[in-house]
Formats: sequence, structure tokens, C-alpha cells
Amino acid sequence: MSIGDTVYLNGVFTQRKDALISPLDRGFLFSHAAYEVTAVYGGKLIDFEGHVSRLGNTLEAISIPNPHDAAAWEDIHSQLIARNGLSEGLIYLEVSAGAYDSRDFAGPETFTPTIFLYADHRPLISEKAEQGIRAIFLNDIRWRRRDIKTTQLLSQALAYRAAREAGAETAFMVEDGHVTEAASANTWIVTEEGRIITRNLSSDILPGITRAHVIARLRNQGLDIEERAFTPDEAYAAKEVFTTSAGAMIAPVIQLEDRPVGTGKPGPVTRQVQRLYYEAIGADVEKVAAWALA
Amino acid sequence: MSIGDTVYLNGVFTQRKDALISPLDRGFLFSHAAYEVTAVYGGKLIDFEGHVSRLGNTLEAISIPNPHDAAAWEDIHSQLIARNGLSEGLIYLEVSAGAYDSRDFAGPETFTPTIFLYADHRPLISEKAEQGIRAIFLNDIRWRRRDIKTTQLLSQALAYRAAREAGAETAFMVEDGHVTEAASANTWIVTEEGRIITRNLSSDILPGITRAHVIARLRNQGLDIEERAFTPDEAYAAKEVFTTSAGAMIAPVIQLEDRPVGTGKPGPVTRQVQRLYYEAIGADVEKVAAWALA
Repeated sequence: MSIGDTVYLNGVFTQRKDALISPLDRGFLFSHAAYEVTAVYGGKLIDFEGHVSRLGNTLEAISIPNPHDAAAWEDIHSQLIARNGLSEGLIYLEVSAGAYDSRDFAGPETFTPTIFLYADHRPLISEKAEQGIRAIFLNDIRWRRRDIKTTQLLSQALAYRAAREAGAETAFMVEDGHVTEAASANTWIVTEEGRIITRNLSSDILPGITRAHVIARLRNQGLDIEERAFTPDEAYAAKEVFTTSAGAMIAPVIQLEDRPVGTGKPGPVTRQVQRLYYEAIGADVEKVAAWALA
Repeated sequence: MSIGDTVYLNGVFTQRKDALISPLDRGFLFSHAAYEVTAVYGGKLIDFEGHVSRLGNTLEAISIPNPHDAAAWEDIHSQLIARNGLSEGLIYLEVSAGAYDSRDFAGPETFTPTIFLYADHRPLISEKAEQGIRAIFLNDIRWRRRDIKTTQLLSQALAYRAAREAGAETAFMVEDGHVTEAASANTWIVTEEGRIITRNLSSDILPGITRAHVIARLRNQGLDIEERAFTPDEAYAAKEVFTTSAGAMIAPVIQLEDRPVGTGKPGPVTRQVQRLYYEAIGADVEKVAAWALA
């Protein structure tokens, strides 16, 4: 895990240490910013269309003009990949409402955005994908617009800290008796009867790009996916639990609080989902994820 | 309204244009930051103790070590006032969790904060305090920890934009059928029977420093304050409505949506509260706010 030396700031590729913004930026003052994280595997962007389309939705919802069309965004991403020699990892993108000479909540009618991107070298088909992660349950205290991807992420940062303190890697957030999502991933369960369940889309959760990809791929295999909210008790009783996200792809959850999930090891449905996804992104599964073939 | 040329960033007083931070700052990436806004009148800090104490509470809640004790904070504030010749306005303070060479939600065990302060010249006993403001009602979509003062302010920024679009100056936020607070102020009503009501403290609202000051001063005058939630209908039916905040002090609300409040002009209780508060901060009321004496 390391951020590449060449980053992109407001039209210029520059050294990371030279990339600087004003603390009067609305991203810093008001968390008035959209972001996206796109996976890169084998030097190629994964599901880029979905990310750039969701970015447009977020920007529109928070009144920031989208500074680029999809082709221009893709060009910046590709240049960052090339300049940093990124083979496996992530491209992080943030567009804030920009910096002004006064701190005014409403701000000007039209914003001149701050645009920041960087490349992050890190394994996506990782040890955690092989061995699984542990989760705790936490109350979901986030704002109501979780369907857009903004930098109002303090609650998620605190959730990850609480998880770490409890010896876990993530937190499943619970609201009105049902799991919404994990701290930065969508959540899935496989019931005793083999039903595959993930929460339906609404303003309660982020419309995950990896979630959509996995649903399409599983349905294409003739599998049935139930899109509905499930309870912590259903998760405890599940044979398998996993999460999907751009950064961790498909992560088996092998423990919830102090209870093992199923056998306490990643199960066959999770492995199948991993295989399908890894194949889809062009990975040589036998070579980089033989453990998913069992 | 103008930000002073000399700002404070991480131990150094510097020119505003030279104050720069990394876009990898957790304040920019995760809105992992606390802030405070302290009023300055006649070159003196107002209710500083309350602000610095609340800052400590916020920092503790979001796991950022408080970099200074109250005396050191006061010294930085005083220097900013002196260096910018600030007579009437605000000191803005932000402490973020700092910048690191990776974007990791949980972050390091212990943070090295980014500290940013600036002076803002603006009238506090203003035309709006004299003439009043208009408010709309909006659903409160903020996160659940409104009792701490963090930069998760996107919903408030959007609320102010919605208010402006509707021809109003602020928004009253409503949750479960009751008003929580205004977009960045506590809300008060005076009923037909003359009862003064403001919402009780809980994690649903910010414990306003000006709110606490006004409650203490009114009780000291023998007035009864009811601390409880009220509904939009109670606000519509009220004789007077006003807000309290460090930045706008006491602002009469003369219109809610398209309905005038009471006579449509600031009422006698609001004027009494303004007089008491202006006297408390050392203002020559006859000179700067004769309209409040009527």
C-alpha cells in the first residue's frame, strides 16, 4: 500500500509533496466534495463506466458542476496509471466545491471545483480475500444521503477505529434493526437454504459498482439474488457472509462479533463469487487465487 | 465580510495565500476535523471558555489529541486579533486529524493534527439583527452526532443553498415532526402566552455557546425558559421566533416559509434578548443598536 509519486491536481500532474490546496477549500471546511475509488488490475480500470456515472450523480446532488466528460476522466485516470506504473491498486478521485476568500455555507451560485487524483499501489486479490475478515456491529449514525459518495466520512473513519479496537477489520452498520452496509462496502449473506441476499438500493446505502457487477454476473449464471434488508440475527445464522467494494473486491467475513460465520472459513458461494469476479477482471485465477478454486 | 490577511497554520502566522495543506489531509478526505467559531466584539473574544471547552469535547469524540490547553488557544486567538486589527467579527478555528502518506479510514493510532485559524471581519450587530431573517423548513438529514462540532457540514451547506433559492436566509430543520435547529444556529420560539421555548440538549442538536449564554442571562432576569422540542406548527403559531449563534448572535425570524411570524417584525422578547446580550458583550446599545431599545 503506497501512494504513487505523481498525483493530479487541478489540471497538472505533479509530485505528491508539491500538491497543495488552500485550507479554505470547501472540501476542508464543509466536506463539500464527491469522491470515487476505481480498482486497477493488470494496469486496466475496472468498471470505470459505473464509477464515472456515479460521480456525475454525486456532483449533481451537491451542486458541483462536473468538470469533465467520461472520456476526459478516463484520460486522466489512464495517464495516472501510466505515469505511476500502476499494475494493481486503486485510483482515488476527489472533486470538491473549491476554495474561496470567504467561508459562507451557501457559497457562490456556481462553483469552480478542486480536482485531485492519485494512484495507490496495493494488492486487491489479497491475503484478506483468501483468509477472510472479522466484523463488529455498530449503530449506523451516518447522514441520510448514503446513495451519493461524498467525503462526509467521519462516521466511517470512527467505525473502522472501533472495529480495530475490537480486533476486527470492519463494522456492519445497523439501523432500525437491519444491516445497512459495512463501513465502506456492501454486505451479503448466504442463508442456510442457500439464498443469496444483499440489501436493496435506496438512500440508505451506496449503490456499489462492485455490488452491481456481482449481481449481474450471478444472475447471468442463473443464480437468484434477493435484494432486501436483513437483520444481524440473519447474518449470525448465515452459512456465509461477504462484502463487496472496489477496494477489497469480494471479502469473506468469517467472524461477526465473537461468533464464527458458518464453519469460520470462507464458504463455497463466496469462493464462486470471487472466481467469477477475478475472471471478469482478467486475473489468472489458478496463479493468483488458487485458493478460490477449492 | 473579509478574511484577514494573516492566518495561522500549524504553529506559524502566515499570509492567507501562503497557507497551504495537503489534499491527503484527513479533513479533506474524511471530514475528520473539529471546528469552532468565536465571536469578537470590541477586539475581545466572546464566551471563549465555552468554545474552547466544546472544542475539547469534539476532539475527544473524534480521537484527535487536543494540541493546546485553553491558555495557549487563547494566545493564538489574541495574536490573530492583534495581527489583523480585528474589532468586530469571528475567529474560525479548525483542527483536523492531519495528513498522512496513505488513505486509510482508521488511520494511525495517534494523530498529528493540522491546525488552522483565521480572523473574519464582519458585522455581528448587523442589519439582519435589526430587520430579521426568513426561514424555510427542511428535513434534517444530518448524522446523529450533532452534539459535536465537526466539519461534516455538507447537509448544512445544501440547506443554505435551498434557503437562498427559496428567497430565505436560513432553514429550520425538522426530524420526527419537531424542529431540531436552524442550518447553523439554535432556534427559539415565544408562544402566544409568552412562554420562551428552545430545544433541550441531546445528541440531536449542537450545545450552542450563545444558547447557553442567553438561557443563563434570561433566567438571571427571572424569566422562565422551557427546554423542549417544538413542532413547525408551534413555530407558525408563535408570536416571536429567533435564532442564536456565535456568528449572528440573536437573529429575529420574521417569516417562516410564506407566513409572517407574529406581526412580521422583530418582537419585544427578541429585542430584550438582543439588548441583554449586546450589553453583556460590552456594546454601546444606544449607539450601535438603538433599534433594539424600542
